[in-house]
Amino acid sequence: MSKIISSKKDFSKWYTSILTEADLVDYGLVKGTIVFKPYAWKIWTNIQKELDKELKKLGVENCCFPLMIPYSEFKKEAKHVEGFAPELFRITKIGDKELSDDLVVRPTSEISFCKYFSLNSKSYNDLPIKLNQWCNVFRVEKNTRPFLRTSEFFWQETHAIFETKKEAQQFALDFIHVYEKFLKEALCIPVIVGEKTEYERFAGASNTYTIEALMKDGQALQSGTSHFLDQNFSKNFDIKYQTKDNSFDYVYQTSHGVSTRLIGALIMTHSDDNGLVLPSKIAPYQVVVITDDVNYFNSQIKPTLDSIQDLDYKVDTSNKSLGIRIAKYEVMGVPLQFIIGRKEIEDKSVTIYNRVTKEKKNIKLEQLDKEFITSSLSDLDKTLYNNALNFLNNSIVEVDNIEEFKKAINDKKMVLAYWSGSQEDEKKLKELTQATTRCICWSKKSLENKKCFFTNKPDAKLVYFARSY
Amino acid sequence: MSKIISSKKDFSKWYTSILTEADLVDYGLVKGTIVFKPYAWKIWTNIQKELDKELKKLGVENCCFPLMIPYSEFKKEAKHVEGFAPELFRITKIGDKELSDDLVVRPTSEISFCKYFSLNSKSYNDLPIKLNQWCNVFRVEKNTRPFLRTSEFFWQETHAIFETKKEAQQFALDFIHVYEKFLKEALCIPVIVGEKTEYERFAGASNTYTIEALMKDGQALQSGTSHFLDQNFSKNFDIKYQTKDNSFDYVYQTSHGVSTRLIGALIMTHSDDNGLVLPSKIAPYQVVVITDDVNYFNSQIKPTLDSIQDLDYKVDTSNKSLGIRIAKYEVMGVPLQFIIGRKEIEDKSVTIYNRVTKEKKNIKLEQLDKEFITSSLSDLDKTLYNNALNFLNNSIVEVDNIEEFKKAINDKKMVLAYWSGSQEDEKKLKELTQATTRCICWSKKSLENKKCFFTNKPDAKLVYFARSY
Repeated sequence: MSKIISSKKDFSKWYTSILTEADLVDYGLVKGTIVFKPYAWKIWTNIQKELDKELKKLGVENCCFPLMIPYSEFKKEAKHVEGFAPELFRITKIGDKELSDDLVVRPTSEISFCKYFSLNSKSYNDLPIKLNQWCNVFRVEKNTRPFLRTSEFFWQETHAIFETKKEAQQFALDFIHVYEKFLKEALCIPVIVGEKTEYERFAGASNTYTIEALMKDGQALQSGTSHFLDQNFSKNFDIKYQTKDNSFDYVYQTSHGVSTRLIGALIMTHSDDNGLVLPSKIAPYQVVVITDDVNYFNSQIKPTLDSIQDLDYKVDTSNKSLGIRIAKYEVMGVPLQFIIGRKEIEDKSVTIYNRVTKEKKNIKLEQLDKEFITSSLSDLDKTLYNNALNFLNNSIVEVDNIEEFKKAINDKKMVLAYWSGSQEDEKKLKELTQATTRCICWSKKSLENKKCFFTNKPDAKLVYFARSY
Repeated sequence: MSKIISSKKDFSKWYTSILTEADLVDYGLVKGTIVFKPYAWKIWTNIQKELDKELKKLGVENCCFPLMIPYSEFKKEAKHVEGFAPELFRITKIGDKELSDDLVVRPTSEISFCKYFSLNSKSYNDLPIKLNQWCNVFRVEKNTRPFLRTSEFFWQETHAIFETKKEAQQFALDFIHVYEKFLKEALCIPVIVGEKTEYERFAGASNTYTIEALMKDGQALQSGTSHFLDQNFSKNFDIKYQTKDNSFDYVYQTSHGVSTRLIGALIMTHSDDNGLVLPSKIAPYQVVVITDDVNYFNSQIKPTLDSIQDLDYKVDTSNKSLGIRIAKYEVMGVPLQFIIGRKEIEDKSVTIYNRVTKEKKNIKLEQLDKEFITSSLSDLDKTLYNNALNFLNNSIVEVDNIEEFKKAINDKKMVLAYWSGSQEDEKKLKELTQATTRCICWSKKSLENKKCFFTNKPDAKLVYFARSY
């Protein structure tokens, strides 16, 4: 019997019960950390594999930087250290010996990359440099939740430097669209794309682009960010290069990242009260075959499965009842179950259970070809995406005043409203409603003569608001 | 002009010059750490990819554990903490706040895995559990050298638990042979396999198996270890399970690892005074095409290269001279260079430069098929392995007394000798000669009535000695 809590009853407990029942995580020995059990780590590995292909197309190369950064180096960029200082894990001892300069366990690696760029970009011939690392980063968090907010998490961080401001700005834009496409195509998650207000920007960035997904409980999840760092870091870290006309200039810089938080996004976008639901490109295996007859499987089905490129499948011939096994893979969100009982063997068929539509269909063996399986998986992905897109579209409410705003937020909606408030106003609104600006909308709507719904100030922009993780 | 120092003149400077000239590393901001530049990281990624396939065949699943371990937990296994205490990086502060229980940045993850096993192995049905993680680990080192000995390094650590002692011992043996085979087939490095003396064992292990490679300067490099931990950790960490007859027992445990040190082994086994030399399975690309005529390449050669599975290649059409480009990829150790100048285009051919044999051969286009390229690469790997094997075989000297021992070690040889010394004797011999026991030899030679060459004590075993990294 599955022990999954109803998501309508208690969304937070539902989430935790999915983690346990689908065997995704254990809690770590240090508060706020988690063990990625094999099934969860395979999901992350698949995300890495798929996204890494897209990064390669952007000309990004993988490398690897040390975990530890001297605190003295960290302090060189004032806004950056201010943004991270209270969240830092600090190494002050080696064995029993005190260190004279503390080491910081990286919360992000701007500093390391900056040092690298200052050594490796001597001339315009060396530019652009586009580097990425898949690594662990650390930020002390008080309220932690597995995948969504943990003190150690995993991510990719891309850092790039360019000759011109225009190139850097364009790359930051290109990157956020790659993330948008990746979430759509690999994770089946629709997102809203836009830029952060000044108040919500990354510490040290001149502009931050973001993709925002909406979870089933109406809370937004910032799912990927792309930062235009301008010359803010290059001036502090002296990243100079020789220009074409033999003078010197500072490089223009960007950085970009998505993290294991995406696993949280997957769960809270697709899963249901029966357990985890996974899109086919990210599932550890797309198909589980449940049978007691290995010979039937080997002769009738295995050749077809083996002929499909990039298909991972699992065969379960354990001595538990079919029913118990079916329930197990339901909870684990395996996209397709091939169930082969006595009846199926008799009439040379397979019963296929679709985790998303919850339909069981009996398919004759002659119909079960490569094409049938791949199109079933691709249909399943489309259904997942469309369901999530409908939910997102139905959740956006346009409001004109604070009362409408409060009602919409309390109804677990995402709000779209004209906004020209200051950072101070943003804080006030958050205190009042627990909602924050998610991003400035890139819609084509005319913004002429629009006034802020909250402050009545002119020159408002169209902005998304929501409560968020 | 390549700036590679002659290895005969100064082996250590030769090694460092290879690192720089082949663009493998920068030094990190923290002493003893390195930045893996893209070319080096790709080598490590390829090692991961190839070895991971072999681990899967052993039934090992990947997962991921937190980096930080509470010091209080670490202290539970006395020998273990004793082995690592002076090498530990300790986190004592979060922001400006002192922690009441320090955190250790993992030097290895036995403790984390033990905690996991105690939670996840309730019954004999759950056993065996075989888990692996690819991660970064940390040990403060005084004398560091990139790849060989760094304060942060990368590795895979496999940890497994079993019902019986026999299974665990067998798994530890199987594992060391998988490493041996991997080094032979993927890295083209021959090794000596055996077990460590008590003095050289892993802290907390009952037995340690090792593979030892011999570098070109006559120093041994411990290249992979497999530990039988017996019930040493399971008793301290209370890893109990319910047995078939409803009683309780402690599990039998093993652990196994190879690290980024293997990149050092690659360099010091195969490279030469012209630069890096890489075996084909591990090289970031197996083929570089040097040409100014993209059309000729696209129409005449690209289709053949694209038809070869798992082949990575690079095309260099930069505006530097052919000679400069050839020299560059020589230094970077690309296995095959396809050089296409004016002459080659005229007579429809390609000149192929083999990095290992240093031969240049002109090949007509019609000969340049898939078979030719794959067999050229496989021949190149065989040559690499055989060269290294000859070197290893020619470097082993059997000795009967300390004078012969000293002479052999000073001649940069590996020594094979009968040994039944104590830990104290082992320390003495090291002080006298700077050589250590590498492993107890598993040869079939009769050991009856053999006396120790150093102490004259009876019941000697046949043991390998060398200076080592």
